[in-house]
Amino acid sequence: MSAPTLADVRAAAARIRPHILRTPVHTSDTLDRLSGRRLFFKCEMFQKTGSFKYRGATNAVQKLDADTAARGVVTHSSGNHAQALALAARVRGIPAHIVMPRTAPAVKKEAVIGYGGRVVECEPTPAARQRMADEVAAETGAVLIPPFDHPDVIAGQGTGLLELLEDAPDLDAVVVPVGGGGMLSGYSVALAELQPLVRRFGAEPKNADDAARSLATGVRQPALPPASIADGLLTGLGDITWPIVRQHVERIFTVSEQQIRDAMRLVWERMKLVIEPSAGVGVAVVLSDEFRATAAERVGVVLCGGNVSLDKLYW
Amino acid sequence: MSAPTLADVRAAAARIRPHILRTPVHTSDTLDRLSGRRLFFKCEMFQKTGSFKYRGATNAVQKLDADTAARGVVTHSSGNHAQALALAARVRGIPAHIVMPRTAPAVKKEAVIGYGGRVVECEPTPAARQRMADEVAAETGAVLIPPFDHPDVIAGQGTGLLELLEDAPDLDAVVVPVGGGGMLSGYSVALAELQPLVRRFGAEPKNADDAARSLATGVRQPALPPASIADGLLTGLGDITWPIVRQHVERIFTVSEQQIRDAMRLVWERMKLVIEPSAGVGVAVVLSDEFRATAAERVGVVLCGGNVSLDKLYW
Repeated sequence: MSAPTLADVRAAAARIRPHILRTPVHTSDTLDRLSGRRLFFKCEMFQKTGSFKYRGATNAVQKLDADTAARGVVTHSSGNHAQALALAARVRGIPAHIVMPRTAPAVKKEAVIGYGGRVVECEPTPAARQRMADEVAAETGAVLIPPFDHPDVIAGQGTGLLELLEDAPDLDAVVVPVGGGGMLSGYSVALAELQPLVRRFGAEPKNADDAARSLATGVRQPALPPASIADGLLTGLGDITWPIVRQHVERIFTVSEQQIRDAMRLVWERMKLVIEPSAGVGVAVVLSDEFRATAAERVGVVLCGGNVSLDKLYW
Repeated sequence: MSAPTLADVRAAAARIRPHILRTPVHTSDTLDRLSGRRLFFKCEMFQKTGSFKYRGATNAVQKLDADTAARGVVTHSSGNHAQALALAARVRGIPAHIVMPRTAPAVKKEAVIGYGGRVVECEPTPAARQRMADEVAAETGAVLIPPFDHPDVIAGQGTGLLELLEDAPDLDAVVVPVGGGGMLSGYSVALAELQPLVRRFGAEPKNADDAARSLATGVRQPALPPASIADGLLTGLGDITWPIVRQHVERIFTVSEQQIRDAMRLVWERMKLVIEPSAGVGVAVVLSDEFRATAAERVGVVLCGGNVSLDKLYW
């Protein structure tokens, strides 16, 4: 499987248009003042299932031929991709098997079930997840749709960039949160071909900075043990996303847990948007001292999702 | 001072257009399903200063002639009108004196100061507030801009209705939270003249149901002692708003504190919008059993503001 191109992203946009929401771009005088720039926030928390993941899942599911699709899809994820794939499958009218560790919070299982997915529990280890997903695939004939390291998923995530450019022309840079690198890759391949002078940056928690160190050293680094509230960004780069990031991303900025919490709170408070910690990471980057030296007047920032527990405060 | 008309609302819309945000209308499959209708949420939490109050304050301030304006404006409020008037005055380049009880939370005083207003403290009684406001007016020549019972304020609040009708045509009903009745009056006078068949409803906490009882009995009832988390809706109807509400509003629905909290949480969780309890009141009404019998397929609901403390959970 090879890296998608701008043409793939455009084809994905046409394919998923009937199914996704076209999310708006919001601005904020307060955040402009604090950052010393003009910021354009792509509001992916408004996307169906509450995150950008619905784009990639929908593209992958809709692209399947009818016979393959009929056998269903399977993934192992306890995060936003799980919900996204469950709904994308329901919309196509096919089964979705979501392998989740039996220790995953009940609310996450219920969300998947609410979108029509079938939760398959496994032991909470990466090996057990993979084994269970393979078993489900063998039993049912379902196709594995991984959360990020797949050309159709990457191309789907890139469709947000096409919308962002329509609403915020003449950008000087984009800042995209990076976990496995699906969205960062999708945005970067499309942007490099479409508007190569727009600078492409990643945003990552300091406590999960494997992508930043991968890019800085030129050698892909493994994911660290989970130690950030930005639970969407804990994964390492994949076989497909890593070469794209290496080639097309200029730099990945990192921010502390406190910076993430502060940024998240600021967006809730001033922009009235419920964003999850992973989305706070991009905001924290453009407000950081480290980013201040970056020459870029107009900056696009992706608010990647808004799926948070409302049973606790994050600050 | 007499009741504003549709022409006043239209003039207000033209007057304030350069200064306000045109707020979007959001929809939600989940809330449509729960309510059994199509709901169109007017997102006033995105308005400058975080509530619809900026419309009325801006209209009143911008309408002043230059000599009067130069002497400044004054109000007594510790709520959203205080912040709205402070910013509206700063935009016009005139002083705003905001009389607040010395017991008001520091964060509310800081918000007013942040928007360029001057906070004048008084004892925490209605009489002391009024006396202090009169004193400030006498000393400075500033004009009193009350929070709701003023034709220019009412006309300004009504501008939201014109936008709502543009984005959500063919409504069968609107549901507007009511405290002093500024927004409900503005929406109702404009709608009665423009699309008289659209049903006009108010939404009020059960624990502050003076407007509901006023409309039901035909006799204006005084405000109750504060007993609702919907702190924007604790005021009684005014000399100007009461006759408008009596003439143009069909019914005011009331909801419990638990219904308000549940509705507020639902909007945060599913729509990713930070709304304040007062905005939850309108949502709670359209989800209530009591409202279920109301014939109305397409209903506009005003999410009036999003100014909440993020230091606590509301549920």
